[in-house]
Amino acid sequence: MDNHLDNFFSALSDPTRRAVIERLAQGPAAVTELFAPHDIALPSFLKHINKLEAAGLVRTIKTGRTRMVHIEAAPLELAEGWLKQQRRIWEGRTDRLAALAEALERRSGA
Amino acid sequence: MDNHLDNFFSALSDPTRRAVIERLAQGPAAVTELFAPHDIALPSFLKHINKLEAAGLVRTIKTGRTRMVHIEAAPLELAEGWLKQQRRIWEGRTDRLAALAEALERRSGA
Repeated sequence: MDNHLDNFFSALSDPTRRAVIERLAQGPAAVTELFAPHDIALPSFLKHINKLEAAGLVRTIKTGRTRMVHIEAAPLELAEGWLKQQRRIWEGRTDRLAALAEALERRSGA
Repeated sequence: MDNHLDNFFSALSDPTRRAVIERLAQGPAAVTELFAPHDIALPSFLKHINKLEAAGLVRTIKTGRTRMVHIEAAPLELAEGWLKQQRRIWEGRTDRLAALAEALERRSGA
């Protein structure tokens, strides 16, 4: 699990790879279509796809001469879940501090 | 913004740094307290704190001989927001596909 989050977050730390994820959120796409908007060499682009696939964020399926890339939703939800959990702990603490401040204020006003 | 997400996700791709964030979500802590549970050398640990601070995920404040570390909530919310946005696009698409499948099923049943 910890290892997985390492790979998810590492894979998402690059703008080309995030652009691929943003495109794939709208639906599967062929590698050639994904590559088109990027101003880098194809081998470099393929390394990004490989990194995303190794992290489990996408899967690729070869049909004839076309390699289709699909998003894997579960790992993205896991990464989002970790961040959400930290925020909830943080916000819970902030709420308690606010309640405490309010209680102190009421007491000093009484 | 893109650059920021690079740094946020890169900083979160390490288990020691995520453990620090998990601890700090509960409230600020001194570097010595954060370091205690980790079985690594102090200089290595300080590099992790520096990486988190350079990414903007924490700030450190020196008070006398103690360096206190505070979480910065906004960047974590930005990273969570990016993931949530992708999920919403993805789920919107899945919902439309489900509605389409249902409509086709109704038509073939009629």
